[in-house]
Amino acid sequence: MELQINQVEDLCMGAALLGAGGGGDPYLGGLMVKRELAAGRRIKIVDPQDVPDDALILPTAMMGAPTVLLEKIPSGEEVLTAFGQLQEYLGERAWGTMPTEVGGINSTIPLFVGARCGVPIIDADGQGRAFPELQMETFAIEGVAGTPMTIANEQGDFAVISTDSHSRMENIARGITIRFGGTAYFSNYPMRGHEVRRASVPNTLSLALALGQIIHNARVQRQDPFEELLRHLFEKSSYKGGRVIFSGKVVDVRRETRAGFMWGTIRIEGLGPHLGECQLEFQNENLIASCDGELLAIVPDIIAILDAETSVPITNETLRFGQRVKVMAITVPDIMSSPKALNQFGPQAFGLKETYRPATNGSLYGHQRL
Amino acid sequence: MELQINQVEDLCMGAALLGAGGGGDPYLGGLMVKRELAAGRRIKIVDPQDVPDDALILPTAMMGAPTVLLEKIPSGEEVLTAFGQLQEYLGERAWGTMPTEVGGINSTIPLFVGARCGVPIIDADGQGRAFPELQMETFAIEGVAGTPMTIANEQGDFAVISTDSHSRMENIARGITIRFGGTAYFSNYPMRGHEVRRASVPNTLSLALALGQIIHNARVQRQDPFEELLRHLFEKSSYKGGRVIFSGKVVDVRRETRAGFMWGTIRIEGLGPHLGECQLEFQNENLIASCDGELLAIVPDIIAILDAETSVPITNETLRFGQRVKVMAITVPDIMSSPKALNQFGPQAFGLKETYRPATNGSLYGHQRL
Repeated sequence: MELQINQVEDLCMGAALLGAGGGGDPYLGGLMVKRELAAGRRIKIVDPQDVPDDALILPTAMMGAPTVLLEKIPSGEEVLTAFGQLQEYLGERAWGTMPTEVGGINSTIPLFVGARCGVPIIDADGQGRAFPELQMETFAIEGVAGTPMTIANEQGDFAVISTDSHSRMENIARGITIRFGGTAYFSNYPMRGHEVRRASVPNTLSLALALGQIIHNARVQRQDPFEELLRHLFEKSSYKGGRVIFSGKVVDVRRETRAGFMWGTIRIEGLGPHLGECQLEFQNENLIASCDGELLAIVPDIIAILDAETSVPITNETLRFGQRVKVMAITVPDIMSSPKALNQFGPQAFGLKETYRPATNGSLYGHQRL
Repeated sequence: MELQINQVEDLCMGAALLGAGGGGDPYLGGLMVKRELAAGRRIKIVDPQDVPDDALILPTAMMGAPTVLLEKIPSGEEVLTAFGQLQEYLGERAWGTMPTEVGGINSTIPLFVGARCGVPIIDADGQGRAFPELQMETFAIEGVAGTPMTIANEQGDFAVISTDSHSRMENIARGITIRFGGTAYFSNYPMRGHEVRRASVPNTLSLALALGQIIHNARVQRQDPFEELLRHLFEKSSYKGGRVIFSGKVVDVRRETRAGFMWGTIRIEGLGPHLGECQLEFQNENLIASCDGELLAIVPDIIAILDAETSVPITNETLRFGQRVKVMAITVPDIMSSPKALNQFGPQAFGLKETYRPATNGSLYGHQRL
């Protein structure tokens, strides 16, 4: 499919939902993409099934703290340097690019790269959401090498990283990101078409677009989109549905930008049907939500905060006191909750002692249990 | 000249003197080199004048905190990875290697590389001593690009860094070094033979060897080597002589391993002719020495601490309470005290407010003023 300029905002909105509070401000990514389309460039999104087996695909993305991204806006040249230098290092032209994660700005960075370089973007990603660290990828779980990886900044500086460990790739790249000032742009997990099909979460860009359109239409019609969002996730995607786990007023947001991430906690005071206080912890993305000691949802399930009135997802760096919100949990596809996957990005990978328990019981109306 | 196994310890001893308290434990570097020579490999040190104009020279070295090096001993493969991968990246075989600094272990790392790879080592370096940071190089002052630079660890991980700023090269590489655990091995400032002649401090490896031999011979003959060391520096090198600025007993050493460096202060209580207390500050290398508020010596002059009895130089990571020591200051060659050079590694480059003042008055017996 070819992305139209009037679809960009919806895609960004859906991506913010899948971003689980992180992934970087989608507004910025939307502007970058709209500028390209307005200049007459084209964005061709292709299904992973339509990628030739031996096509070289180089995923592209941003990493770092969303709090820094808000003030240190990309020009676009950063990620083009990363994409170009990885081709240079490999001595081969890329057939296309794709997202490493579908959340926030990282769903639109590859669209920008595709527009600027005239290559297709694969409709798939390696997280099915946003996660904070580079080894937290279905690509890694399925045995794709993370490096050579390129990482670049706005001054044209770049590094090529080589290691046989996904965790050490993250560790080295994070060190560079901090030295770059807290954000960096990269290309890693170079893959062939057949590997993309085996190792990625498929059709997540089109899912983001569909979810964004549902929110958009509900706003226009002044309706509650939650029922339709959940139905879409359950019936038309590989996600296992979701539910609204809490609603209330934001009473506290603590944020700290440290070690290349945004860390913090959110407290929401119950309003309407929900009583008590919901507490969330995040490392860029929301990791766990509980209410007065009772677990509501936990990674890898997506925990997203939406404006209670407009249903627009709010990322953690822009969340603030007094906002009326709903907290939504979405249960991830099987590829993201296998033992291998939980080892890579389950609760223990984040140092949490709780065990993964899907936020829904797998039926459409699982959310009505609450 | 071809280095003989019985010269290695002397070269290390002289290198420790030029290392100004830093440069990494020369004992380890000596072991690496002796093992190669014992295995029948050869170390050919060539004068910069004898290097062909277009020969590709890739300097090799270790970076990080000497305190970490003491416990995280190199296998040698780290620097071979860095040297090999830079050739790979440039698509060209190196004609030879050379030290980036002549201090401590970094005077012997290139000897190891030369032995293992069968290439000559140029008798010159880029600091004429040891300095803690990568931009503090005569190479940089003379306009040689610092990158592409390769940096590697003991696990075979490596990165290629590209930037047009010497300071940002240091900044990025330091971030990687920290993530590598506090030490890393690298190759940077790729140069042609004609650039080596223009941009380096010549004949510093042979100077280290000569200084080490003087200390060695004096030990055998139970004589004080200081007079001969100073005479050699004054008459047979481009250094401007030196003097003993203090002698006494080490009463305190504070060391902190932080941000990829070893930082600290040393206090020495006067004995013999010297009264009062000498205080030194270091960032890997000694930066400034003062006695009761009076400046004795300051970078870029070399401030080295030697055992009072044996005259063996003591590096800062092994210095300890109770040692009887002499503090020696050596005034650097002109190429290292020009305005450009002071800008790169003079007092202000280290955040010191004092102005550079040579520790000697430039005459052989300048040291007798004290």
